[in-house]
Amino acid sequence: MGKSLTSRKEDYSKWYNELVVKADLAENSAVRGCMTIKPYGFAIWEKMQAELDRRLKETGHENAYFPLFVPKSLFEAEEKNAEGFAKECAVVTHYRLQNDPDRPGKLRVDPEAKLDEELVVRPTSEAVIWNTFKGWIQSYRDLPLKINQWANVVRWEMRTRLFLRTTEFLWQEGHTAHATKKEAIEEAELINSLYADFAENFLAMPVIQGLKSESERFAGALETYCIEALMQDGKALQAGTSHFLGENFAKAFDVKFTSDQGKQEYVWATSWGVSTRLMGALVMTHSDDNGLVLPPNLAPIQVVIVPIFKNQEQLDLITEKAESIAEALKAKNIRVKYDNRTTHKPGWKFAEYELKGIPLRIAIGPKDLEKGTVELARRDSLTKSFEDQEGIENLIDNLLKEIQGALFTKAKNFRDSHITEVDTFEDFKDILENKGGFISAHWDGTSETEEKIKEITKATIRCIPMEGHKKNGECVLTGNFSSQRVLFAKAY
Amino acid sequence: MGKSLTSRKEDYSKWYNELVVKADLAENSAVRGCMTIKPYGFAIWEKMQAELDRRLKETGHENAYFPLFVPKSLFEAEEKNAEGFAKECAVVTHYRLQNDPDRPGKLRVDPEAKLDEELVVRPTSEAVIWNTFKGWIQSYRDLPLKINQWANVVRWEMRTRLFLRTTEFLWQEGHTAHATKKEAIEEAELINSLYADFAENFLAMPVIQGLKSESERFAGALETYCIEALMQDGKALQAGTSHFLGENFAKAFDVKFTSDQGKQEYVWATSWGVSTRLMGALVMTHSDDNGLVLPPNLAPIQVVIVPIFKNQEQLDLITEKAESIAEALKAKNIRVKYDNRTTHKPGWKFAEYELKGIPLRIAIGPKDLEKGTVELARRDSLTKSFEDQEGIENLIDNLLKEIQGALFTKAKNFRDSHITEVDTFEDFKDILENKGGFISAHWDGTSETEEKIKEITKATIRCIPMEGHKKNGECVLTGNFSSQRVLFAKAY
Repeated sequence: MGKSLTSRKEDYSKWYNELVVKADLAENSAVRGCMTIKPYGFAIWEKMQAELDRRLKETGHENAYFPLFVPKSLFEAEEKNAEGFAKECAVVTHYRLQNDPDRPGKLRVDPEAKLDEELVVRPTSEAVIWNTFKGWIQSYRDLPLKINQWANVVRWEMRTRLFLRTTEFLWQEGHTAHATKKEAIEEAELINSLYADFAENFLAMPVIQGLKSESERFAGALETYCIEALMQDGKALQAGTSHFLGENFAKAFDVKFTSDQGKQEYVWATSWGVSTRLMGALVMTHSDDNGLVLPPNLAPIQVVIVPIFKNQEQLDLITEKAESIAEALKAKNIRVKYDNRTTHKPGWKFAEYELKGIPLRIAIGPKDLEKGTVELARRDSLTKSFEDQEGIENLIDNLLKEIQGALFTKAKNFRDSHITEVDTFEDFKDILENKGGFISAHWDGTSETEEKIKEITKATIRCIPMEGHKKNGECVLTGNFSSQRVLFAKAY
Repeated sequence: MGKSLTSRKEDYSKWYNELVVKADLAENSAVRGCMTIKPYGFAIWEKMQAELDRRLKETGHENAYFPLFVPKSLFEAEEKNAEGFAKECAVVTHYRLQNDPDRPGKLRVDPEAKLDEELVVRPTSEAVIWNTFKGWIQSYRDLPLKINQWANVVRWEMRTRLFLRTTEFLWQEGHTAHATKKEAIEEAELINSLYADFAENFLAMPVIQGLKSESERFAGALETYCIEALMQDGKALQAGTSHFLGENFAKAFDVKFTSDQGKQEYVWATSWGVSTRLMGALVMTHSDDNGLVLPPNLAPIQVVIVPIFKNQEQLDLITEKAESIAEALKAKNIRVKYDNRTTHKPGWKFAEYELKGIPLRIAIGPKDLEKGTVELARRDSLTKSFEDQEGIENLIDNLLKEIQGALFTKAKNFRDSHITEVDTFEDFKDILENKGGFISAHWDGTSETEEKIKEITKATIRCIPMEGHKKNGECVLTGNFSSQRVLFAKAY
């Protein structure tokens, strides 16, 4: 059936690419760098969306929708942001096709339907949203304004990989406006914590919260907060960012408000987002050589029941039992599927559901009917046990929670054992080469040093951690003064 | 406060435009023909989405996501579809901006970053999806394939109106593949019924199910089913369409399957969609001169509680009572808001919530505290009554259902009284001019006649109704044979 995967040890990158396609998460499309998210992958993304959306609404954010296109004059209004994205913009220049006189049956751009002003397909929406906020904000009573948008964005990337870096991707982008600097910074920090909590407690993916160095900041931000995760191959992955934008966009789009003191002041801004990249992070945090491993929270199907039978009579008896178990599970809001297809053998089904990361698999055969048992297999540990049919819904309910926790613990142990403090550049290179993971090292705070380290090792500063690490030392490259260790890693 | 509206009688079109903006549903953006959907409007759209999504999943459809861009060569593969959309396509020709040497600080398209093949921003996704289906379908076991996508699409419209016709809009588009013609037709019909049920029982908007005449069909379809609604000004609005595409796309993209007889056959297709246009239909079905009227199913806030007070002490006492009522309502899954802002007077709040269409408003003053009553105002009928605080949650629960039903009945009565059978072209013109609504008339079945009637009256055939009207007669324009009355109307 051609579903077996390259092992992670053999070629991690190949393993990932194969897994994403074979587990029906996504595939490349006919459009350069754009992916198709397949139904199974999209169902997982929908679970992420629903949970994050709930958390954002709970913290007072409202959804809205802004245009896909950014007129060039708006796009260029905030200089740093424009400069940061200009090199990767898809640009609409025409609004009509016509029959190509030279190629019968083919179309070409109608040269007479050229736009007066080109439209940039949004790579991010600060410009178009702040231009709109101008009309929404007059007084301090209109603040804070806390808006979120679920949307597609386009960044013309030269090298793409499914979920991790695609020309078009799906994300949510939050955009908020505040009366004071303090409030805006608090919002940026709140969202970063919210992302961290979401990653850890919903995706079972441990993350480190920190600040980006200047060279890694979002274009137009004064400060970028981030959550950084560690993949199984020892490379880091930026899983979400939250930006304190200062007054940059308010000044670029002239968004002022009348304060409660009656003064005209510029508004303070944040923006923040997570994207379908999280799907890639999810795969590379938990999955194994047999395929996807899904935390129960994200599994479109949490439990699959497979009948083992030799004839229709056996199948009928098993079906009766399986359906009653399925009902009991559904009553506990557990997502269950009974796969009684006769077109596929049990072994094929076992491999298929393993590949797709279904957390628990129940098999029921004629012997089980006699004994009142089922065979229960855990996807995360690949262990099996026989369990009583009676009350199995309670066992499974608890087990799903246990698996959710176990996946987090396993990933956290791996991550924690891959944060290495180093004090010399020799150790830095050695650990990076032979062990990977995060390297906690002193850095003199200059972009020059950061750039040199990157040139020599390909490692970048993933973040300046929010907690701990406040201790003076000497920069691992230059020996100059450093007030805090920062985390370096090679990254996706 | 400038919130009062032009009356419908005075200028229906102006009333609509004002209402959409003032009730915070949507506004025009800086991008020609593109709208911004504001948080309140988007919350209503989310209610539509959630319900329709649930119904589509319940009938076995799965969500997925396909690229925003369609390479020109794919776009032109199905000729009729390409021809139908070529004149309104936004086209991406470049993938980078650079500093404009002639205008310091400004950007221009980088002439060296021209795409080899232009990309069309999807006006609809048949092409890109059928190109993908080719890889997903090999055998009859892969069928039916029933996929839905929630997405933004772009059609370069020359005259735009908020929600009703915008350059970019949001929609869902379903795309299914079937082994037989019969099954595909059944799917197209099932979806049209599903849309009708959704419109009537969720949006409280009566619709007529029918078939489009050839000239009104979707480009590339063999048959287009539709639901047609009637707005308060007597104009019709196409609220959803479902297309039987035959083998057109399968042939254009060479999508064949091995049948259970072992033969290679082309796949049969459907596609179908509803869009943010439904928001416009909603407004023009129920709202009045005071503002929006929302069916309770769609109201982000179903009940608002407004305190009437002269001092803080009164407010504190009222708040205690209001919060206990709010809790009782929430326990019944009723969406309630308590507006205790001191920055706005009760009268202002009343007008605001009327404008925004909140179905029920509770006012509580000091007298009500004494008497154990509240004042309850219905948005749909603009009637008020005094009710006991005790058990009000049950009264309101029932009342919300009653309002949902009453809005449908009212709209249906209006619609039914605006379907007029005519047998002469004089009557046709007279009714159209003086009464509006649907005109049920015999038509000889030719595009020529349809076109002539349109030229003379601006009325088009909205649909050939699925039910009734099967009776021979003479065409209202030509006197030629007709087997069925069809519905004409001026339309949005």
